[in-house]
Amino acid sequence: MKKIVNVAIMGIGTVGGGTYEILTNNHDFLMRTQGVDYRVTKVLDKNTDRLKMFGIPESCAASCVDEIAQDKSISIVVETMGGVEPAKTFIEKMLLAGKDVVTANKELVSKHWSALEAAARKGGAGLYFEASCVGGVPIIRALQESLQANHINSIVGIINGTTNYILTKMTEEGMSYADALKEAQQLGYAEFNPTADVEGFDAAYKLSILASLAFHTCVPYTEIYREGITKVTKADIKTGLELGYRIKLLAIGKRKGNVIEARVHPTFVPVDHPLAGVGGSFNAVYVNGDFVDDLMFYGRGAGARPTGSAIVSDVVYASKRNAPLYSDFDNSGNVAADIEVSKDFKSKYYIAVSVKDAPGVLAAVTGVFANHNVSIESVSQRAGGTGATICFLTHTASESDVNKAVGDIEALDDTNKVVSLIRVLG
Amino acid sequence: MKKIVNVAIMGIGTVGGGTYEILTNNHDFLMRTQGVDYRVTKVLDKNTDRLKMFGIPESCAASCVDEIAQDKSISIVVETMGGVEPAKTFIEKMLLAGKDVVTANKELVSKHWSALEAAARKGGAGLYFEASCVGGVPIIRALQESLQANHINSIVGIINGTTNYILTKMTEEGMSYADALKEAQQLGYAEFNPTADVEGFDAAYKLSILASLAFHTCVPYTEIYREGITKVTKADIKTGLELGYRIKLLAIGKRKGNVIEARVHPTFVPVDHPLAGVGGSFNAVYVNGDFVDDLMFYGRGAGARPTGSAIVSDVVYASKRNAPLYSDFDNSGNVAADIEVSKDFKSKYYIAVSVKDAPGVLAAVTGVFANHNVSIESVSQRAGGTGATICFLTHTASESDVNKAVGDIEALDDTNKVVSLIRVLG
Repeated sequence: MKKIVNVAIMGIGTVGGGTYEILTNNHDFLMRTQGVDYRVTKVLDKNTDRLKMFGIPESCAASCVDEIAQDKSISIVVETMGGVEPAKTFIEKMLLAGKDVVTANKELVSKHWSALEAAARKGGAGLYFEASCVGGVPIIRALQESLQANHINSIVGIINGTTNYILTKMTEEGMSYADALKEAQQLGYAEFNPTADVEGFDAAYKLSILASLAFHTCVPYTEIYREGITKVTKADIKTGLELGYRIKLLAIGKRKGNVIEARVHPTFVPVDHPLAGVGGSFNAVYVNGDFVDDLMFYGRGAGARPTGSAIVSDVVYASKRNAPLYSDFDNSGNVAADIEVSKDFKSKYYIAVSVKDAPGVLAAVTGVFANHNVSIESVSQRAGGTGATICFLTHTASESDVNKAVGDIEALDDTNKVVSLIRVLG
Repeated sequence: MKKIVNVAIMGIGTVGGGTYEILTNNHDFLMRTQGVDYRVTKVLDKNTDRLKMFGIPESCAASCVDEIAQDKSISIVVETMGGVEPAKTFIEKMLLAGKDVVTANKELVSKHWSALEAAARKGGAGLYFEASCVGGVPIIRALQESLQANHINSIVGIINGTTNYILTKMTEEGMSYADALKEAQQLGYAEFNPTADVEGFDAAYKLSILASLAFHTCVPYTEIYREGITKVTKADIKTGLELGYRIKLLAIGKRKGNVIEARVHPTFVPVDHPLAGVGGSFNAVYVNGDFVDDLMFYGRGAGARPTGSAIVSDVVYASKRNAPLYSDFDNSGNVAADIEVSKDFKSKYYIAVSVKDAPGVLAAVTGVFANHNVSIESVSQRAGGTGATICFLTHTASESDVNKAVGDIEALDDTNKVVSLIRVLG
């Protein structure tokens, strides 16, 4: 006799639909390979037309969330509604009712992981969220089940498909940011209001989850330095390529002793680094551990089918565990007392300064850098408009020193402004 | 109270030493993050000097294998001896005694998985072998715990570090095969007798394991087409680069319905494919699933520390399971009745033919290709020696047709021989 596991899905949009499709199309395959008969018995969505769209029988339609919470035959609930509320309330209800919850909701997990985990522990249920980070790429399972032996030193990822698509278009086809965004919106890769993606919020949510797991301590998303791609120009991309870099929106987490860095910003990636070749809507996460050294996980960061794959993987994983999996750290949602999440960090920098065409301006600017311990690796000049733009590539310097230097440079008589500041992956 | 798990290690060479180092150096870290106190209490190696080398206390030295098998306090045994015997006998003893076994031994698992699993089931123990394939890259766990939702369509890997090092040196520095091999031997990347690596046996062992897991059916290593890198020439590499390809020793497994292809051979990989950039001693596995689409797992394929990371990951994984993990297919070691492992397959081909300088030779050769349904995409000629070498790039053709064409071409009056035949990743 096969084990039967009844599953409910809350929210049947793109990803919920993909999940339903896998559990239906690959039902017999899962039964054969996993020895479990997974059945979607309830689907909750206020828009019942969507159920029809995915061929879900009317008998599966749940009239309200309590119908699922009170159904003792359901042991796993998939949440693919997105957003914070009502998803949070619904998930807590399920967890308190003892049902394992599988979610793709990065915003919710990063903002309310602590509360959700408390509900899970109280209900004796598990919370699984592989699908919340990097779509079909199994980075969470890798951190939890494959890299346990290692202190993770760093986790560096291209973890937002929308921005990677836009930056790839800008790099490979010379498009402007505005045109690339427009194309991404037309193709459905970017939302009508693209803020969450292009301003780096989505990447910061994911980094918060990944860094917390990697470093075994809370890295709240509010502590993450965040800068989006809206200010990246065609000129930056062109100069970057000339210097041997491709620009990527990177999410970077590092841990050294009890100091953690966590930041999301456009970054120059050396063209021969494996992350530089991650184009279009592909995503990748580059991990370094003290024993395993460098690893990279590459794949589709979004989409109904890859994300559905991650969700069903969690459904199977949850159904096979004899006890729920909880965080191996004090999941309070706050930075632990013995941990510092540093706002300062070291990097190489690309800095472009628009200057007036005056004698001595290069000496003045380089003098400011020197005053702040920022040492220059190379200088180039690009013409344009009135005056010129001088592009500096620095040696490794600290963020705070660079910021002070930028302030002083902008205060010089013969400079207009610092037009670009892009950190370099080193 | 922390749970205590006592571990024994059989064979304390490079990888066994790396494993001991992790369990010792990261002992407190593992206790904190995993809630388990892992203790290496017995080490078996006939060379007791090696124990000293790794700082292992004399009190841990086991005098014989039975001392470990009979020690009821030991629940997990790591096998890092390598080779088939006595490793097989020792492992079976441990499994029958109910101890979980963690091994890095690809040759043993690929040749005797069936017998080992039978012993494991009999003893109620588990057999874990993440470290047997691709060092620190967690591809086995990914197949078992992350990609369950998918029918895996293909698994294509650079899974042997030695050959990748040699081919990278030949490609990037124009070295000959013999010189690159010599350098690899001097650096310890290749053995004194390099046959297992350069002739593709090591890759075939690993592919047998990975393809069996990916396709949920036995893919015996004896069924795998295997061709090493010893015949790859500088000219092949040069022509490949001109055509936009880098040469790699690929292990390729594909499943379509009930037909499986499994082969190891030098392959032209398009330069823009993520596998083309996997250089030096790095390894990578490219997987395609019906829902997750393309994924790549990249990292260190060998070495004490990355392989040790995989072993300790298995130790932790084994110690947390409430029941052992067995194959989800009939692990008989033979091809299943309903499965065909096909020796024929389709590919694009690069074929270089040494010809005499005679009129009509190109027409004769292309005529032979046409007779065997092999259609030509491009032709180029390289000079050298007497006569010339004509290089063909075919459209997709079947292996059997190409082999027939090669036979007929070599029988022509005006040809000398087919000097290269390299399959192209399509």
